[in-house]
Amino acid sequence: MSLLKTSNFISANDVTDINALVAKALDYKANPFRDKTLGAGKRIGCLFLNPSMRTRLSTQIAAQNLGMEPIVFNVGSEGWQLEFEDEAIMSGTTSEHVKDAAPIMGKYFDILAIRTFPSLANKEDDYSELYINQFIKYAGIPVLSLESATLHPLQSLTDVITIRETLNEKPETRNQKPKVVLTWAPHVKPLPQCVANSFSQWMNAWGEVDFVITHPEDYELDPKFTGNATILHNQDEALKDADYVYVKNWSTYTDYAKIYNNDPSWMLTLDKLALTNNAKVMHCLPVRRNVELSDEVLDSPNSIVTQEAGNRVWAAQAVLSEMLGQLSS
Amino acid sequence: MSLLKTSNFISANDVTDINALVAKALDYKANPFRDKTLGAGKRIGCLFLNPSMRTRLSTQIAAQNLGMEPIVFNVGSEGWQLEFEDEAIMSGTTSEHVKDAAPIMGKYFDILAIRTFPSLANKEDDYSELYINQFIKYAGIPVLSLESATLHPLQSLTDVITIRETLNEKPETRNQKPKVVLTWAPHVKPLPQCVANSFSQWMNAWGEVDFVITHPEDYELDPKFTGNATILHNQDEALKDADYVYVKNWSTYTDYAKIYNNDPSWMLTLDKLALTNNAKVMHCLPVRRNVELSDEVLDSPNSIVTQEAGNRVWAAQAVLSEMLGQLSS
Amino acid sequence: MSLLKTSNFISANDVTDINALVAKALDYKANPFRDKTLGAGKRIGCLFLNPSMRTRLSTQIAAQNLGMEPIVFNVGSEGWQLEFEDEAIMSGTTSEHVKDAAPIMGKYFDILAIRTFPSLANKEDDYSELYINQFIKYAGIPVLSLESATLHPLQSLTDVITIRETLNEKPETRNQKPKVVLTWAPHVKPLPQCVANSFSQWMNAWGEVDFVITHPEDYELDPKFTGNATILHNQDEALKDADYVYVKNWSTYTDYAKIYNNDPSWMLTLDKLALTNNAKVMHCLPVRRNVELSDEVLDSPNSIVTQEAGNRVWAAQAVLSEMLGQLSS
Repeated sequence: MSLLKTSNFISANDVTDINALVAKALDYKANPFRDKTLGAGKRIGCLFLNPSMRTRLSTQIAAQNLGMEPIVFNVGSEGWQLEFEDEAIMSGTTSEHVKDAAPIMGKYFDILAIRTFPSLANKEDDYSELYINQFIKYAGIPVLSLESATLHPLQSLTDVITIRETLNEKPETRNQKPKVVLTWAPHVKPLPQCVANSFSQWMNAWGEVDFVITHPEDYELDPKFTGNATILHNQDEALKDADYVYVKNWSTYTDYAKIYNNDPSWMLTLDKLALTNNAKVMHCLPVRRNVELSDEVLDSPNSIVTQEAGNRVWAAQAVLSEMLGQLSS
Repeated sequence: MSLLKTSNFISANDVTDINALVAKALDYKANPFRDKTLGAGKRIGCLFLNPSMRTRLSTQIAAQNLGMEPIVFNVGSEGWQLEFEDEAIMSGTTSEHVKDAAPIMGKYFDILAIRTFPSLANKEDDYSELYINQFIKYAGIPVLSLESATLHPLQSLTDVITIRETLNEKPETRNQKPKVVLTWAPHVKPLPQCVANSFSQWMNAWGEVDFVITHPEDYELDPKFTGNATILHNQDEALKDADYVYVKNWSTYTDYAKIYNNDPSWMLTLDKLALTNNAKVMHCLPVRRNVELSDEVLDSPNSIVTQEAGNRVWAAQAVLSEMLGQLSS
Repeated sequence: MSLLKTSNFISANDVTDINALVAKALDYKANPFRDKTLGAGKRIGCLFLNPSMRTRLSTQIAAQNLGMEPIVFNVGSEGWQLEFEDEAIMSGTTSEHVKDAAPIMGKYFDILAIRTFPSLANKEDDYSELYINQFIKYAGIPVLSLESATLHPLQSLTDVITIRETLNEKPETRNQKPKVVLTWAPHVKPLPQCVANSFSQWMNAWGEVDFVITHPEDYELDPKFTGNATILHNQDEALKDADYVYVKNWSTYTDYAKIYNNDPSWMLTLDKLALTNNAKVMHCLPVRRNVELSDEVLDSPNSIVTQEAGNRVWAAQAVLSEMLGQLSS
């Protein structure tokens, strides 16, 4: 039975059974080449409208492990800027409409993977997922999100995988739900809410953790993603007894894409970590050292950010495997 | 028997039998992997001195379908600017002469594919095809044009393929030559004449259509490409009873690379299309919507631009297959 | 027995037997696919912090010849700027620390190849090889230099290969050590000392040539690389009876990264070449024609720069083969 509800992978809502998908990813981690011909003769186009390192590399590797041919295309620098607005009179700086570009991707590839950041200028466009939805509408082939305007599902699946595989290192939490805290951190520029939204969505969908979010006032996330999570504005209180701390900056959601308060005391330090239950520390990377987290935390054994980033391959491989399975069925 | 006269593929003049090459491409469309080991152990270098999307992707895919290894290199952004003038004293912004770079490509690759746009500054250099001819002169291996200063042969071969495969959808034109009209369209900046030159050259060389070109005065193309085509300055008259309308902007040729007149009434609209014999509408893409063609035309069933762009793969695959055949003979 | 002393390839000091490595490279040149499955299931990440053409292409080709999967990543343009300073407070323009990026490369790849130029601003950082050493320290997998702050070992190995394979074309030098002269040449901007340092290091380590360096006063190289080479400030005297002339510009080392004197009379011309023993002329490329060398010299039969650049593949293939051998041992 497919672990995906639809042909696309855009959010936690596309997954039928998160635990089964996590198990599949960990199987691939144990044996990367077990399905090395599954994707033979299939091609995945990886379109980057924005920079990427881990996502770019892990997706290529995952595809190759499955015998697919990945082709990477940097839309802006190797091609040109795309237009996404319907009925646009294209006399400006955009050279091609997604209505024309996407169906051609559908001719060239079997699966289309896309990274497309939010504008951070137009909240309505961003939160309607205009860009990736236009690709889905016009490509005519399955679409895999490599991070979109509001979500980053392969990162979040990775995060669940990483929590799952490290749980047994924390025997004291084995027989109860681990406490997972998503904490806002300072940064130097306004960032998307994607990772925070997505992590919240997946923690809620997974349902196997006690999930707490902490951030300064004014940094509320979209409630459709935070759901029933406990939300606290007192970071120290939130961190108390945490088993996992996920650190991430985001800009404001309500008064969109602003930096209201950049209080350096929200940086995760060893003092803060001491409040937790010897918590493991996570971050999607890239991380601004000594701004978001201190060197001491990142270099401590509590940090599992490298393990987490390494798991990006297996998350991508599990999802691509499911998407390939749907193609042939 | 080879379908290419020489080891290079630069223009319609390099083809011995256009219909046979078209048939070969359509065979590959029906069975992409029929020659999947033909290029085993062969390598194609794809050098981009200018942006590209369809050409870049379709050439990589075509090479992979034939079992070749494509290696893509963005000359300007990943390397540095090349010098093309003989005897240049290289104390300026160019870092390497084509005389030195090209023979090395000849050591590294079996086939060299190059995209190199015109300067639109020096008509004599552009129309002598200085850049690609310097590569041909010095590389010492077969050269495949991915669009040069004055021509775009893989696009034009694609266009012939697309006309051929859609002809039977127009039974009313089956027993006579279909009327194909190349029409100038407005744009926002000065573009090369490549696609218009090349389409004209291929229509003339193919010889199986009634070929008409229409453009405002001052936009005459080089007569060596337009040949005996009927040239009209009245677009409405030209479009009458057309079976195919190929829409494209180009800048002036005579007084080189200028925009003399950018009359928006030359945009192809449904009203214009109504003058035709229910014509199929073609464009090489990227297209500026509501500048060159209206949304209504591009979104109508008359538009075959996606089918056309999809055929880029089979054009490239047919040509690469012939080039590989010559390598081993 | 391995021809490498350590798991990395950063300088001549990493090689146990230069002649054996050269012989291996020439074996691959005779039969590129002799070890075409040696790297099956292995992946090399090629990270470019700086532009590259020959190194980029030859490394990809070498990896493919050995059955490895190369993945290329342009760090700055496709990702973001890295931070290399320990304890940096990352509130500036760098987005990710090498301490975080490198170990992830170690998760994704089996071998990590890196190009990272010197700053030409901070001599101490550059000559401590801060950047590549940080990658070595944190990646946890073998590191292959594609040119670092002070050295360019794959280029220099190529140079030894090229001298070796052309020696028998110079029977008059067969029974004595050939005289190899590295000469400074003018340029238009301050360049690293890498190629000159590295060539010096390899000539000294190889030990089979009479090695002379000539440059204007103030262009002294680091003595740790020049060793016991004869150093002359009179170019004509140095060139006398030379069998090989290696031409290269570099900026000052002592008063770091300056251009003190850019005397055009140091350009290698036919008149200069007439002083030699019909010397073969080498250059790592890219070369500024009629600034570093005259057209007449580069276009003469004495120039072996194309053969030299072609040999980049075999140098990379020999080294990767040794690195793969160490992986599995």
